[in-house]
Amino acid sequence: MTAPSRPIDAIYSQLETLFGARVSINAGVRETHGRGEGSQLCQPPDAVVFPNSTDEISRLAKLCHGAGVPLIPFGAGTSLEGHVAAPMGGVSIDFSNMNAILEVHAEDLDAVVQPGVTRKQLNAHLRDTGLFFPVDPGADATIGGMCATRASGTSTVRYGSMKDNVLAMEVVLADGRVIKTGNRARKSAAGYDLTRLMIGSEGTLGIITAVTVKLHGIPETVTAAVCPFPDIESAVNCVITAVQMGVPMARIELMDAVSMAAVNAYSNLAYAEAPTLFLEFEGAPASVTEQVETLKALAEDLGGTDFQWADKAEDRNRLWSARHTMYYAGLALRPGARALTTDVCVPISNLSDCIGRTHKALEESALTGLILGHVGDGNFHTLLLFDPENPAEVEEAERLNAAIVDQALALEGTCTGEHGVGQGKTKYLRQELGVEAVDVMAQVKAALDPTNILNPGKVIPKN
Amino acid sequence: MTAPSRPIDAIYSQLETLFGARVSINAGVRETHGRGEGSQLCQPPDAVVFPNSTDEISRLAKLCHGAGVPLIPFGAGTSLEGHVAAPMGGVSIDFSNMNAILEVHAEDLDAVVQPGVTRKQLNAHLRDTGLFFPVDPGADATIGGMCATRASGTSTVRYGSMKDNVLAMEVVLADGRVIKTGNRARKSAAGYDLTRLMIGSEGTLGIITAVTVKLHGIPETVTAAVCPFPDIESAVNCVITAVQMGVPMARIELMDAVSMAAVNAYSNLAYAEAPTLFLEFEGAPASVTEQVETLKALAEDLGGTDFQWADKAEDRNRLWSARHTMYYAGLALRPGARALTTDVCVPISNLSDCIGRTHKALEESALTGLILGHVGDGNFHTLLLFDPENPAEVEEAERLNAAIVDQALALEGTCTGEHGVGQGKTKYLRQELGVEAVDVMAQVKAALDPTNILNPGKVIPKN
Repeated sequence: MTAPSRPIDAIYSQLETLFGARVSINAGVRETHGRGEGSQLCQPPDAVVFPNSTDEISRLAKLCHGAGVPLIPFGAGTSLEGHVAAPMGGVSIDFSNMNAILEVHAEDLDAVVQPGVTRKQLNAHLRDTGLFFPVDPGADATIGGMCATRASGTSTVRYGSMKDNVLAMEVVLADGRVIKTGNRARKSAAGYDLTRLMIGSEGTLGIITAVTVKLHGIPETVTAAVCPFPDIESAVNCVITAVQMGVPMARIELMDAVSMAAVNAYSNLAYAEAPTLFLEFEGAPASVTEQVETLKALAEDLGGTDFQWADKAEDRNRLWSARHTMYYAGLALRPGARALTTDVCVPISNLSDCIGRTHKALEESALTGLILGHVGDGNFHTLLLFDPENPAEVEEAERLNAAIVDQALALEGTCTGEHGVGQGKTKYLRQELGVEAVDVMAQVKAALDPTNILNPGKVIPKN
Repeated sequence: MTAPSRPIDAIYSQLETLFGARVSINAGVRETHGRGEGSQLCQPPDAVVFPNSTDEISRLAKLCHGAGVPLIPFGAGTSLEGHVAAPMGGVSIDFSNMNAILEVHAEDLDAVVQPGVTRKQLNAHLRDTGLFFPVDPGADATIGGMCATRASGTSTVRYGSMKDNVLAMEVVLADGRVIKTGNRARKSAAGYDLTRLMIGSEGTLGIITAVTVKLHGIPETVTAAVCPFPDIESAVNCVITAVQMGVPMARIELMDAVSMAAVNAYSNLAYAEAPTLFLEFEGAPASVTEQVETLKALAEDLGGTDFQWADKAEDRNRLWSARHTMYYAGLALRPGARALTTDVCVPISNLSDCIGRTHKALEESALTGLILGHVGDGNFHTLLLFDPENPAEVEEAERLNAAIVDQALALEGTCTGEHGVGQGKTKYLRQELGVEAVDVMAQVKAALDPTNILNPGKVIPKN
């Protein structure tokens, strides 16, 4: 008995002609391209290619378009919702060879990069220019992947998300046509916003092959602080007031008492095990001093009396390391566990309520969960620790995730603030936006990818 | 001989049933809805309706979708590129009855408004909350119209354009379906960015019936200044350096020597008739003082030695009135003339070059032109004064506009920074973005409006 033929079989020899040694069907290579960092199972592609150029990707798309072979872009593999997996097989496009910084225009505060450039690589390259790229999702993701998932993170309260920090892209369409979505002008009203249409489309409308990003001046002064509060509501109220007053905070993060206990244990620290804000201020010196004084006064009014400030880079790094090691500190609470990471975002006036309900749900559950959030945006994550070998725990983690999404939607929020839809959130899309809006997404998808070869099974619900 | 039947004739009695006295075929009403404030000729619709609700617009769309009758949204009629005209007849939708501010969420810094609300109306309503809506295109446009054209203006260098200040919209589709494009969460990665797809689509993909806008805290301190420079290059270099240093200027506008002479004559003022920057700074007091000192030092290094500062509101208003009366001051240079307003935007390092070439083209032309710009964004306008009754002058104004667009595109810019495509810029779209990108726009348009009833003849080039 022979294996059933797959669409890729018809074109595999042409893939070899096109990519030579840069196409692989090695099981290990396929498996490392079959999942990101989320809790989903591995879904390996049929093959992995390592293109060197836009032209190769255009030729690949033409080939796969004709044969109905799925194409799945793969950056750093750090996504959390099953974006890079291949549930329908096909070809994974690994961008590791396309990692050149093509142009830096310091006077114009922009740069043109290939999609495989990571954010840390870009910022290392920019160091001597006095400029930086601000979007920071935590992981050292690629710029292409960050565009695809509309990534944001700790600095979004000040600098916005990927949708705010990309001027233009080069994109290969399903049939191999290559478009540019804009140019280096800082703004434009020239037709439909194809740049924003592609950002967050998760590889389902086109394959990003170059990105023009906005850069920002490295601030003259940076100061960080931590401050514990008597309860989450006080911490959130402090943030609401500061945002309303227009204090231009660079970062403002919340960790709950369980999270603080986890980092204390993991890194041998002695922070108060209470809801805590991590803050960062930046700008010219007098402005930073003014921001710090304002926040200190606001916090004190709300019971946040034990501020710890850090001006020096090493002190700041030590302080923020508590925040940045959070994921591993959480996992260390239960060796062998995996984390399902929730990602809801609500209007900030509903944030205390939403986090409060989440706490209650965690108290009533057998699973341990930790809460941390980009509180200036109303976005928080719950790390739900579960044993992947225990079906009851897997089910309980999924039940909690669904309950947290339900309550966020009831509070005028979204099921995903920054991680994207992938496979994990397709089932909530109609509940959040309505049947008609998701139908419009499907109409746009059908118009641009009529044979559904671009990252199929992602974003658009199957039925 | 009877007049040829038009698509609207088949549904007119149903329009009367639906709108009663709120449908008009009066010639005067049709003519006031047949053009905006641009230099194009009037193209009146067949009828004008004044809906009261989203539901009425949904029923209107179903009717017109079936009968192939064009639908043209009409806000304040302040657009400049023929967006609101009806080159193929049809029904103009006047939003003046849909001008309610539905919700203000001060804690969340957002508000939900009907599309006919104007920006000044919104800001008057918000005054007691300490919040404001920042996008300022000059004219008192409606929020719906500003979404449709992706408007920006003097405050964009600090607060962004409409694409940056809208969280979600309610939109009626061509076939009458109603969608919401998002919710009040500050950020979301839940599927395709339908909000940004609709912003800048100029009524060709859907009819905006409600808008959730972002609000900002009114700054504690505001200071304005004017400063003449020896030449345009020095003025632009001052701006580039300040932007690179991250000075968070609220507004930074350039007027050329001809413009300054025009406002001096029009308002009996005595400004230096030299390239001049108009600046505004805002924030907490120490931050504003710091910004002012930085800019003053930068300007002095570049020959801008005659700063005039204005702290008080009345002094600021007097100073900015020179900038705001610019359009009328320009027209007053030649009574009876009309102005064709160009709208290119280039990377800021190419701005001196682009403005310099524009100056040269004006010197070689018989027409008078004035240059003013949102220089922090690289966007500038040329007011080309011409006699609308003189075909040679009309042709010369159009030739100059085309030449300015050509040079902006050669300098990596866009044909429209903020006025939109409408009818006036369709011919440049392929030159700017390429045939394939415009094909993608046409594919999206065909998917969402297969019978082409939504504002036909706008954005997408005819052939």
